[in-house]
Amino acid sequence: MSEQETIPITPQTLEVDDELMSDIVDLIRSQSDNALRNILNDLFPEDIAHLLNRMEFEDAQYLFLQLPTEIAGKVLPELNDDLREQFLDWLSKKQITELVEEMPSDDATDIVAELSRDMAEEVLDELDEKDSSELHELLQYDESTAGGIMQKEVITVKKNDTVKRAIQAVRRAAREQNEQLYAIYVIDEKDLLVGSLPVANLILLPPSRRIYKVMDTDVIHVRTNVDQEEVAKIFKKYNIISLPVTDFGGHLVGRITIDDVVDVITEEASEDILRLGGVSEDEHISTAPLVALRRRLPWLYVNLATAFLASSVVNLFSNTIQSVVVLAALMPIVAGMGGNAATQTITVMVRGIALGEITDANTRKAFLKEIRIGLMNGVANGVLTGTVVGAFNHNPVLGLVICLAMIINMFIAGFAGTIVPLALKWMKIDPALASAVVVTTFTDVFGFASFLGLATLLLKYLLPS
Amino acid sequence: MSEQETIPITPQTLEVDDELMSDIVDLIRSQSDNALRNILNDLFPEDIAHLLNRMEFEDAQYLFLQLPTEIAGKVLPELNDDLREQFLDWLSKKQITELVEEMPSDDATDIVAELSRDMAEEVLDELDEKDSSELHELLQYDESTAGGIMQKEVITVKKNDTVKRAIQAVRRAAREQNEQLYAIYVIDEKDLLVGSLPVANLILLPPSRRIYKVMDTDVIHVRTNVDQEEVAKIFKKYNIISLPVTDFGGHLVGRITIDDVVDVITEEASEDILRLGGVSEDEHISTAPLVALRRRLPWLYVNLATAFLASSVVNLFSNTIQSVVVLAALMPIVAGMGGNAATQTITVMVRGIALGEITDANTRKAFLKEIRIGLMNGVANGVLTGTVVGAFNHNPVLGLVICLAMIINMFIAGFAGTIVPLALKWMKIDPALASAVVVTTFTDVFGFASFLGLATLLLKYLLPS
Repeated sequence: MSEQETIPITPQTLEVDDELMSDIVDLIRSQSDNALRNILNDLFPEDIAHLLNRMEFEDAQYLFLQLPTEIAGKVLPELNDDLREQFLDWLSKKQITELVEEMPSDDATDIVAELSRDMAEEVLDELDEKDSSELHELLQYDESTAGGIMQKEVITVKKNDTVKRAIQAVRRAAREQNEQLYAIYVIDEKDLLVGSLPVANLILLPPSRRIYKVMDTDVIHVRTNVDQEEVAKIFKKYNIISLPVTDFGGHLVGRITIDDVVDVITEEASEDILRLGGVSEDEHISTAPLVALRRRLPWLYVNLATAFLASSVVNLFSNTIQSVVVLAALMPIVAGMGGNAATQTITVMVRGIALGEITDANTRKAFLKEIRIGLMNGVANGVLTGTVVGAFNHNPVLGLVICLAMIINMFIAGFAGTIVPLALKWMKIDPALASAVVVTTFTDVFGFASFLGLATLLLKYLLPS
Repeated sequence: MSEQETIPITPQTLEVDDELMSDIVDLIRSQSDNALRNILNDLFPEDIAHLLNRMEFEDAQYLFLQLPTEIAGKVLPELNDDLREQFLDWLSKKQITELVEEMPSDDATDIVAELSRDMAEEVLDELDEKDSSELHELLQYDESTAGGIMQKEVITVKKNDTVKRAIQAVRRAAREQNEQLYAIYVIDEKDLLVGSLPVANLILLPPSRRIYKVMDTDVIHVRTNVDQEEVAKIFKKYNIISLPVTDFGGHLVGRITIDDVVDVITEEASEDILRLGGVSEDEHISTAPLVALRRRLPWLYVNLATAFLASSVVNLFSNTIQSVVVLAALMPIVAGMGGNAATQTITVMVRGIALGEITDANTRKAFLKEIRIGLMNGVANGVLTGTVVGAFNHNPVLGLVICLAMIINMFIAGFAGTIVPLALKWMKIDPALASAVVVTTFTDVFGFASFLGLATLLLKYLLPS
């Protein structure tokens, strides 16, 4: 696919490519403010953020200052974490306050949460009372819960209101907020959430109709403390685009929209991938080397400890190795192939757990499946390896030893590859985080022990005649 | 978090838990149809699908037949792939046709695409002409492109129409289609896409206003052949909920909605995770053992070939190992730790490539970063390992050998861990698929070669005195 087809082409906007990028940098360096503003005018905030992310910091600062406050407020949340942090260190209290005022409450909360404690206090003091109290409320929720990702911008009507009244509420909201209008939420006398109605439906209804007669009473909703991963599952399962959030008493306190959930889904999937690879979930391409090292090194040290454990198993058999030195060259095959088979099993298990596919009912089935695959893999790999090794070394017993060891170790791979992620889940440890290191310790130790142990038992048939 | 908090609690619906599940199975087996229908009436189609997924097939068949056609048409696309396939084998042509008629065109296309060729032809013949020609059109697109995931249900108005006229179009669409109304799309005399307008905005506008005066002319759109992964990136980047699709001439041919894209995002993230783990992207917990084995085994054979390669490197040094047998126990530490460090690097690179974070500009930076981390990791792990090994074996030269070998191998890990995913990307091979096996071959070969090579050079200092 050519680059041209993948970039959205809109009738009146520019294509965001390397050419545009270098044009803009030229204009920045020649301080051609008018030309710059004309170009910025034709770009979406997301595209401006994309350009800023890729520029030298000085150029990015210059360009950011050319943006009208309204646009800058939309660009800031779209910047990558590192650049946004640098910008927040650089901008003044007044500038940050003006930007925060332009943002919907969920984005504003994220920005304030990233400020130093003192700066956050000062910015909150500068805001008008309504904004300030909304942000104070949102800041108190854990950022990975429904409360932490929701926004306060909600259109609410009473259940006895008319459709006409609801339309007025939508008009008001459209003037005051800069947010997508998806649904209006209906509350009763006690402010409890009792219904919802898509905004679009209002144009289909007679203006005098009472809302309680036309509202949808099956409102899927969540409490503020529900984990964001659960929130994402609800959006995915019910194909919804906005979800009301209630407090423990059932009062409507905010809403979550699909665009925030798309970010959560991407984030959670990345987290699993990175953890499975033994990397911190905060690491990006752009993370500084020393920061990345500090996060990766502890994980390597854990692996180093398990490597010493496996090594000590080999040491138990040094007499055998000294007698039949080819065992040293063959033993990594048994251990490594066990590790590869285990990685396959772990991957399927961890993904199944993350997607919620694992239930009590199918756990036993998954376990039996992986054990069967382990044995079959063991036979398929063991017979092939045993034949090659036996023929190459002119020693069928050596072939038999490696064949049996592979069958044993691939059985272990299936067994531990299933049990360990499940056990970690039961222990409330993320299976993506620790499964691989635990399971490959098993396959290393059992790989070396079974191969060298069998070789020791059958040593007299292996000695060069 | 207790189970209760995570399940959406709605005023009039039941909680979907194991108790409900066993109640329903009891009712199925006692053939209590009325009671069953009452319960089904209170459940969302997605929850019914969830229950069916977890039942014995005979129970699921019985329950499915209790559903009104309208609900059954919503349940079928939500079933997991295996159960849906079984259902499509079991249902008659007439039943399938009725269900397909209830579905939006994108879901209907997916179902027809899953039928046997003959059955698909027959079902398409049974449909009315409009539905049939829509499905014929949608079926011709590659299923992983914009055309393959779009639907034909679009509200279109001419740019000279009034707001009142547009409202009438929305009314008509609301009657005919069972779909979410997000936006209306505006076309000119030549049917070219020229603008869009959120449906909700119609209630804010005077009825006599012409659409071209109020429409948004910056319509982000894609062509039918754009890959679904690119489509997902556009949704994520611009925070949109629906995206019009045009043909090569710029004519509006359909739209994609956010709920379909959420599925794409989940699918693509799973694909990366599974491929990194050496598993087929189609594998699920529920995949039958023999099917899973057939897909996993070729991958293990590729790894087996590379394991033999690494083993042959060890064989070159058999004299050295025979003289200093402790080398056999230590060499897996060097190779394994290189592999662990490489996995960290690969994970960050593959994720960065998938998220589009890698650009020409930062590739060099990422490369230099990983090489620096590799060297620092090598020193940190090498010095620690060398000290322990040297002290434990009362041989500082042995400690030096393993220290140097680890530095060399972790440098290789950073080098190959960056270069290989990038090279695979340039060669249009998915980096998630092949990076790990190629890079760990490097770290195994260089790990054994550097450690045993250095040991051979310094052999006289290593021999037991």
